[in-house]
Amino acid sequence: MNLTPLLPLIYEPLVRTALLEDLGRAGDITADAIVPADRRASLVLRARQSGVVAGLDIARCAFQLVNPAIRLDAERPDGSVVAPGDVIAIIEGPACALLTGERTALNFLCHLSGVATATASLVAAAQGTKARIVCTRKTTPGLRALEKYAVRAGGGSNHRFGLDDAVLIKDNHIALAGSIRTAIERAKAHAGHLVKIEVEVDTLVQLDQALATGVDAVLLDNMTVAQLREAVTMTGDRAITEASGRITGETAKAIAATGVDLISAGWLTHSSAALDIGLDYPEFSSAGN
Amino acid sequence: MNLTPLLPLIYEPLVRTALLEDLGRAGDITADAIVPADRRASLVLRARQSGVVAGLDIARCAFQLVNPAIRLDAERPDGSVVAPGDVIAIIEGPACALLTGERTALNFLCHLSGVATATASLVAAAQGTKARIVCTRKTTPGLRALEKYAVRAGGGSNHRFGLDDAVLIKDNHIALAGSIRTAIERAKAHAGHLVKIEVEVDTLVQLDQALATGVDAVLLDNMTVAQLREAVTMTGDRAITEASGRITGETAKAIAATGVDLISAGWLTHSSAALDIGLDYPEFSSAGN
Amino acid sequence: MNLTPLLPLIYEPLVRTALLEDLGRAGDITADAIVPADRRASLVLRARQSGVVAGLDIARCAFQLVNPAIRLDAERPDGSVVAPGDVIAIIEGPACALLTGERTALNFLCHLSGVATATASLVAAAQGTKARIVCTRKTTPGLRALEKYAVRAGGGSNHRFGLDDAVLIKDNHIALAGSIRTAIERAKAHAGHLVKIEVEVDTLVQLDQALATGVDAVLLDNMTVAQLREAVTMTGDRAITEASGRITGETAKAIAATGVDLISAGWLTHSSAALDIGLDYPEFSSAGN
Amino acid sequence: MNLTPLLPLIYEPLVRTALLEDLGRAGDITADAIVPADRRASLVLRARQSGVVAGLDIARCAFQLVNPAIRLDAERPDGSVVAPGDVIAIIEGPACALLTGERTALNFLCHLSGVATATASLVAAAQGTKARIVCTRKTTPGLRALEKYAVRAGGGSNHRFGLDDAVLIKDNHIALAGSIRTAIERAKAHAGHLVKIEVEVDTLVQLDQALATGVDAVLLDNMTVAQLREAVTMTGDRAITEASGRITGETAKAIAATGVDLISAGWLTHSSAALDIGLDYPEFSSAGN
Amino acid sequence: MNLTPLLPLIYEPLVRTALLEDLGRAGDITADAIVPADRRASLVLRARQSGVVAGLDIARCAFQLVNPAIRLDAERPDGSVVAPGDVIAIIEGPACALLTGERTALNFLCHLSGVATATASLVAAAQGTKARIVCTRKTTPGLRALEKYAVRAGGGSNHRFGLDDAVLIKDNHIALAGSIRTAIERAKAHAGHLVKIEVEVDTLVQLDQALATGVDAVLLDNMTVAQLREAVTMTGDRAITEASGRITGETAKAIAATGVDLISAGWLTHSSAALDIGLDYPEFSSAGN
Amino acid sequence: MNLTPLLPLIYEPLVRTALLEDLGRAGDITADAIVPADRRASLVLRARQSGVVAGLDIARCAFQLVNPAIRLDAERPDGSVVAPGDVIAIIEGPACALLTGERTALNFLCHLSGVATATASLVAAAQGTKARIVCTRKTTPGLRALEKYAVRAGGGSNHRFGLDDAVLIKDNHIALAGSIRTAIERAKAHAGHLVKIEVEVDTLVQLDQALATGVDAVLLDNMTVAQLREAVTMTGDRAITEASGRITGETAKAIAATGVDLISAGWLTHSSAALDIGLDYPEFSSAGN
Repeated sequence: MNLTPLLPLIYEPLVRTALLEDLGRAGDITADAIVPADRRASLVLRARQSGVVAGLDIARCAFQLVNPAIRLDAERPDGSVVAPGDVIAIIEGPACALLTGERTALNFLCHLSGVATATASLVAAAQGTKARIVCTRKTTPGLRALEKYAVRAGGGSNHRFGLDDAVLIKDNHIALAGSIRTAIERAKAHAGHLVKIEVEVDTLVQLDQALATGVDAVLLDNMTVAQLREAVTMTGDRAITEASGRITGETAKAIAATGVDLISAGWLTHSSAALDIGLDYPEFSSAGN
Repeated sequence: MNLTPLLPLIYEPLVRTALLEDLGRAGDITADAIVPADRRASLVLRARQSGVVAGLDIARCAFQLVNPAIRLDAERPDGSVVAPGDVIAIIEGPACALLTGERTALNFLCHLSGVATATASLVAAAQGTKARIVCTRKTTPGLRALEKYAVRAGGGSNHRFGLDDAVLIKDNHIALAGSIRTAIERAKAHAGHLVKIEVEVDTLVQLDQALATGVDAVLLDNMTVAQLREAVTMTGDRAITEASGRITGETAKAIAATGVDLISAGWLTHSSAALDIGLDYPEFSSAGN
Repeated sequence: MNLTPLLPLIYEPLVRTALLEDLGRAGDITADAIVPADRRASLVLRARQSGVVAGLDIARCAFQLVNPAIRLDAERPDGSVVAPGDVIAIIEGPACALLTGERTALNFLCHLSGVATATASLVAAAQGTKARIVCTRKTTPGLRALEKYAVRAGGGSNHRFGLDDAVLIKDNHIALAGSIRTAIERAKAHAGHLVKIEVEVDTLVQLDQALATGVDAVLLDNMTVAQLREAVTMTGDRAITEASGRITGETAKAIAATGVDLISAGWLTHSSAALDIGLDYPEFSSAGN
Repeated sequence: MNLTPLLPLIYEPLVRTALLEDLGRAGDITADAIVPADRRASLVLRARQSGVVAGLDIARCAFQLVNPAIRLDAERPDGSVVAPGDVIAIIEGPACALLTGERTALNFLCHLSGVATATASLVAAAQGTKARIVCTRKTTPGLRALEKYAVRAGGGSNHRFGLDDAVLIKDNHIALAGSIRTAIERAKAHAGHLVKIEVEVDTLVQLDQALATGVDAVLLDNMTVAQLREAVTMTGDRAITEASGRITGETAKAIAATGVDLISAGWLTHSSAALDIGLDYPEFSSAGN
Repeated sequence: MNLTPLLPLIYEPLVRTALLEDLGRAGDITADAIVPADRRASLVLRARQSGVVAGLDIARCAFQLVNPAIRLDAERPDGSVVAPGDVIAIIEGPACALLTGERTALNFLCHLSGVATATASLVAAAQGTKARIVCTRKTTPGLRALEKYAVRAGGGSNHRFGLDDAVLIKDNHIALAGSIRTAIERAKAHAGHLVKIEVEVDTLVQLDQALATGVDAVLLDNMTVAQLREAVTMTGDRAITEASGRITGETAKAIAATGVDLISAGWLTHSSAALDIGLDYPEFSSAGN
Repeated sequence: MNLTPLLPLIYEPLVRTALLEDLGRAGDITADAIVPADRRASLVLRARQSGVVAGLDIARCAFQLVNPAIRLDAERPDGSVVAPGDVIAIIEGPACALLTGERTALNFLCHLSGVATATASLVAAAQGTKARIVCTRKTTPGLRALEKYAVRAGGGSNHRFGLDDAVLIKDNHIALAGSIRTAIERAKAHAGHLVKIEVEVDTLVQLDQALATGVDAVLLDNMTVAQLREAVTMTGDRAITEASGRITGETAKAIAATGVDLISAGWLTHSSAALDIGLDYPEFSSAGN
């Protein structure tokens, strides 16, 4: 996979906010009281579940905003598939700062790896077909750029990033315009030349109207596998086809086999479980207590 | 239930950020092109799953930041249990603004209601015992105050809000201090008089040491039900007891029955699925296509 | 024209920043010292040059952030063509606040109206052809969304809004990729399904390569009118054609006549002069001195 | 010239905002897809027009916020006069980051150099006289400190920076006060001891009143050359004299010759064209295609 | 007194920050738990010490950011002299919100009233002379605009607001320049025409040098009353004279009598005690316990 | 003493704000004009009064945000007791930047050292008893975390940091609840398990009620020494005892001797005078002028 890293300009403010949310006004009163100032430690980030890693740069940023002397060396970079027990990264630095930063670092890493892992499960289901897995705008408030990145780390692609970078005409827009044709024509009249237009259709009749008016993509919403197959045939290469609605690991295989170009699933970003990743302090294991 | 609303001072900046994340630089190019400026609409927020509502004030804020003329009237306020089909709220205002704000409003509402619903499921499992369900610091970056609120809406209680408002001594702190006793004593020497001290113990031996040194609460981590029962007996009223690790709807009942004061589960905030809530535009239903 | 207003969510922070930049730490020490607190005034915003108005909502916002009691009633809304002497708006409110806010309000209004006016001059030159006038990313730092809006107010269209909402492959990308074909193929492999791809070509040979590989649009850079005509013929409807380089009111007519779809000009946003708009205080005119 | 650099504390937030405005949520999707991660490049910033350079530190900041490994070595520092073809700076670093940062860097540099160049043209016109060229508060929203700096780089001086650092009594203040005398007296009664007072006068009668009351400076607005000459004589060394209104390269020489101390022109900051500065990638020139 | 109110644009962000500093992530857990949601209350802001009021608008803003339904009616507006027991304002609204906002409101009000009161004490000492009392840049970080306002409310005047609005040449500048003359000449060469120049002198020899070079004001630092008297005579009306150093209520009278124009004291803003102002809830007084 | 440093994440934004408040839009126009760009200097931070140092990291941050090349080497770290003439730190770097940063650095350092010094005076008065000195929420807006830190540097402890980290039931809460018992019970029902509950009592009758209901701490407000002694006896080890009201260096000794656990004083943070700390430029002393 060819995963382009996010720029710190984009994620650093989020990491800073998350750290301050955890530190409050008084900072880490536990570690500050207990951990000797000169102790160093190294810790191992280890997968406790199978999944796909996403967010190591962001975790490193969290540690380094607490103390720039912390190093995080990735053993399995973002996009790697990991099994339980696999070492993801080694982290080394002042012990107190490591303890202060670890929860925030993990909150980002486990959440994003969860999104990547969910995506990878659908990607696997669609393997052998041309269908790409895409996410939606149903993202966690404040984390859209990061979750979209995690979808890419999981092998998926991104749908539009917001309301402003592509036109997506939905049922309510159509109802307010009066007809699919009117809605599409108004969108074409306003859209810049680099803006694509997609329209949601619920029936093959609507699909026919949309294709007749001309659009870049059609979102085939909640159709059965049989309907999807017919929709793909009807569409030919007049538009990109996207299937959505009730996408699970089980249904994705059959849907992908219909020949659609894209399968989109909101739950990748709004309902995927965090990946379980642990932080072990190997040097303390012998220390006992 | 007695649920105190969050102050807009706390959540409005988050809502603003989330809206700008969706609007980008150009705003809602779909609705702007298609929806006549003078059209009004009303829409119905309706549960599609059973669950507990949380976040209506925040959803209202999202709509009103797009256009202050939008009204949201809650039919089932935060904390309400809803069944599929139940009307949660009626929203009314300029149609274009409604369409622009709906995704951001729902992203908050569905996520927070998902957290409340997950919490309520554990609360139900613990019913008839004194065990309270509490969340952890394993929250979504940027949303801690909101997710903690959602836990309360689901009938749960909150653990500490961050690193600064209570001392929680974990295994790594103990390893770095050399012993439980040393760790607790250092914490006591530093902590303000209104700061409570909790210590994580993995064994009954550690529990004994902790109680001997004196703490406000003990976190009984990953213990079996039998161990928990013994731990509760050992502790008596010398400390609050909290069980954590592998808490599910299935295990919670037995754990609650051990007599622990608290059951904490990180997944309430990091891995609960969004509650499925739909937005219907009743007045368009007759408009067809 | 059908000009959708910008949301205050987008421009209000910019207006606030601009006001604070002018107010500094001490505020308006001139008006505060001189103007009686209870005086009200009304002022007339009047064109001193021919042009197109853009930015009235933003000017109103500037006044109302100083004092919410100020009213601004637009006589010629954004997008209107005005001649010298035309009344653009009537503004009424506490005199001191009007004086405090007027410079910031005008700085926005005159700049944006300047951009709209420059755009309208090119739109006029292209009249009778299908060519649309578009702006570029050569915008004033911090004001991109507003300047893009002003271009629309002037009858133009918008090119991409930033590096993230469309692919534009330029000469340096091609040089680094090794060939046009490689550059386009890499872009296609990465781009989401709603992202269009445009490529800059300097020669007809490059154009042929780009069209053979397949792109959504071609940017014909610095070509002569004869070359443009040939490029349009070669392209047919395989791609959108955009002419750029040395676009002026004089050259635009001939370029538009070549049949290109778009004419883009960076100077609309980076070098257009402010439109001269005056603020008259009619009620003081009789006051003399 | 003795040009003091601006502190990064002042400009870095603006550069950050401008970069994020360009990067959006997804970053540079073109360069990220096309440019190999390990390619380095060097580029040459070269004047394509005659003018005065301003903003190199800010351009460097833009590149380094994208990637701190980028170096920018100034060949012609801010304030230098350049001719077409002159090398202004050499920039070296990772190729992808250079492409990502270049537009934002140039947007600042070309705009500020345009302001400096316009200023230098008036400074040249006034050469041989004592008249200094000054800018006004008619600046681009958000960029005042930078544009004021660019005026200094062009050999000009700065008028007040905002409403709070000097008193400037204009016609409307006078109308609201009832008389020039009253306006000046109120200003004197309120102003701190380090605040200077300037008053705008349109006629020699008003000038006489102002001088009689006592002010630090007089703004002679829209006077003819003959009136200016008489005003300078009347004023003697009782006040600083500033001419404003209809200042161009053509009129400035004659106005400067009247003996005024200052000539102010709003268009230096609101209407000067960007200086044309190109970025060449010399190492790619042999790469062809 | 003629006290111009500060604009909310300037102080509202500070009030918001202060409230969030107090509310943390969980808000007011005491009032939220205890106070019935529908209870209203009115409270009386009453002086417990003699002093001068400053900051009522800011206190109102604090309450209204918690709940816009709160009203604050000023009985003794800013600048009023109050005696123990005097009612300063009546505040009315939802009881819970009043309790939540009161500490932040009082923290601003008592601090600013303390500054105003300290200022008024020096103003009283200087009564009957022409000496004005001025503050310095020794202000509390983040609160300069507010403390400068409080000085005005106490009858004082403001020195410069920052490093950028006037030149103040101190001993170290002189040492680095090599001589007073060089320092002043460099300052004059750089300063804009509306910038005044003041120079600190420790001896009459230095004063003579400064006056010979020409400055707008001289800061007579740590001089005896006799030296000050001589300095005033030497200076005549060639410059404004400012005395500083060891200014107290006791020394101010004699210093003012020397004929200096200004007396400056850093402690007005960095060391004045908060004015004791109490909040009484009259309606509860009968409630007993 | 064992003083944990504050994290730069917490204080750097405050320092940045304070510097920009001083620099305004134009920066340090005095030093920029006068000080040669290549001059370096070293300066000595020296106590002019006896006291306790607090804030050296923050002062260093202020200098380094102006110019990262400045070094500050602490001779007497935070928490040190200093006498007049003691060297606190040596600072070295570019002379112009030193002059630009010194006022902001000192404003933080002198204020925080003043708080630490005031605290230390009460700590000294309570020596030999178990009473700890604590601060309150009566802090300077925006500086709470720093002032709480300064109290620790002075040997004191911190009360709660805000409204959200502990319950403190005051007279008005009790009045609104109807009784102490009701107020405490409501608080217990809502508070998380790591939240302590303190209640303010004015009389021994109230104390008895509070203890009977059960609380973690009692605030004995404005009691006489005799009452305090009796309250301590009544309380035993059922609760922590805190004395407040009219605490001065004189009264603190007797109050501490009553056996209370804590003595709290708002004036430590709202009314302590800045510690007088001077900056000497030793290398210039021979330069004369």
